[in-house]
Amino acid sequence: MNIFITNDDGYLSYGILGLVDKLSDEHSITVVAPQNPQSAAGHALTMHKPLRIKYYEDLSKKYKAKIYSCSGKPADCVTIGLDEVMDIKPDLVISGINIGGNLGTDILYSGTVSGALEASMMGYKAIATSLDSFELDNMDSAIELVYQFVSNYPIDSIGDDYILNINAPNIPYSKIKGIKVVEQGIVSYTNKISKGKDPSGNEYYWIGGSLIKPEDGQKDVNLIKKGYATITPISYMMTDKDNMKTVSDNLQKLK
Amino acid sequence: MNIFITNDDGYLSYGILGLVDKLSDEHSITVVAPQNPQSAAGHALTMHKPLRIKYYEDLSKKYKAKIYSCSGKPADCVTIGLDEVMDIKPDLVISGINIGGNLGTDILYSGTVSGALEASMMGYKAIATSLDSFELDNMDSAIELVYQFVSNYPIDSIGDDYILNINAPNIPYSKIKGIKVVEQGIVSYTNKISKGKDPSGNEYYWIGGSLIKPEDGQKDVNLIKKGYATITPISYMMTDKDNMKTVSDNLQKLK
Repeated sequence: MNIFITNDDGYLSYGILGLVDKLSDEHSITVVAPQNPQSAAGHALTMHKPLRIKYYEDLSKKYKAKIYSCSGKPADCVTIGLDEVMDIKPDLVISGINIGGNLGTDILYSGTVSGALEASMMGYKAIATSLDSFELDNMDSAIELVYQFVSNYPIDSIGDDYILNINAPNIPYSKIKGIKVVEQGIVSYTNKISKGKDPSGNEYYWIGGSLIKPEDGQKDVNLIKKGYATITPISYMMTDKDNMKTVSDNLQKLK
Repeated sequence: MNIFITNDDGYLSYGILGLVDKLSDEHSITVVAPQNPQSAAGHALTMHKPLRIKYYEDLSKKYKAKIYSCSGKPADCVTIGLDEVMDIKPDLVISGINIGGNLGTDILYSGTVSGALEASMMGYKAIATSLDSFELDNMDSAIELVYQFVSNYPIDSIGDDYILNINAPNIPYSKIKGIKVVEQGIVSYTNKISKGKDPSGNEYYWIGGSLIKPEDGQKDVNLIKKGYATITPISYMMTDKDNMKTVSDNLQKLK
């Protein structure tokens, strides 16, 4: 297959280069990924300034792929990469493998997921993929998981209006209990904002905080911690159809 | 009501100050909005650096509201504004009124929509609202529309897992044909990327392009051009439930 790969950790992340290394014997790979890490980039497109594309010859040779960086965010990489950099159209777009899970409501902030959604909106089959850890110990496990998925899943069957969001648990490949197709859950944080004073005495706020352990359940946020890889079809069509009638009825009452 | 307002055009935009002016006689208003315009900010949270909050005393007096700016993006304004700036919890969060429609698949890039989604994920009733024009001629029409909505719609009935995305057509209020509850449509652009050379001879890419006129239909992108205001319930739960079985079946076949 012709595979296009981007991410939001930057083109030098092991999550992307390790995956390229694993796939490039069997597939023709083009990478356009951010020059710098873009964590929590969300679905931003850079429209207020021009962007630069850079080709890396030595790196490309080493990994048997075409490897470029882009001065923008993941959605920019996809837009320019698919429209301008690639001369053929990819059979599959992969965004990742991200260092850190993209699960539950956190996907709203995810550059990784947005890269895949952008590709899907442009009409391509796309997956977003992440390792549920900020450590790299089990990145090879995630790479094997994605390799197995790409090798065996009928990519053509991926629909036009969704992507597959694949998360690998933070355990060795042999210990993964299976792959579950599950719904997106909800993620909550504690101590979300730190408040302090800088060396000049000015007040600042800093957004961060630690994850509240999710309760038992059958969604992505739950099953990943139980040793399963999770797959969630995610759509860029966000209408909450279940509530359209309620809203309509409420409006009618006003008239 | 206690109403919290943010936007992505910045705290000095007429879309936000005009709305505050209209609402502040009847409601208690707190504004935390970006210091600078944040167009196409997407759902980004700023986590890699501290953020500043600034209070504007004269502006607050003039508009009978508490008006602050934040050095971050709309989702940052909401996170810090609701958790740290407001001492009471708002009955309603409004993101807007944005200069430019937030319709169809463009909502994925929208800082305005993301501000409202952030508030919804934090457990608040929230609406995103935009004028379908980059000119301000009919902003007063959009302000009147939002004022009528806020005054008459049962805000308490807005559910926990969706926001209402309200777009005003670019016509005077008296000419608006009605409000339609509709699904999110699809937006396409032509000439999405410009390629050129800078004064030093280096190649650049610039993302932009003009909207392709949508075909006839009954979605937000269609009806706004026919003189209707549109309301779409938008959920941050993005699972494409319709396709979960297909994905499951495809995975089963592999085993």
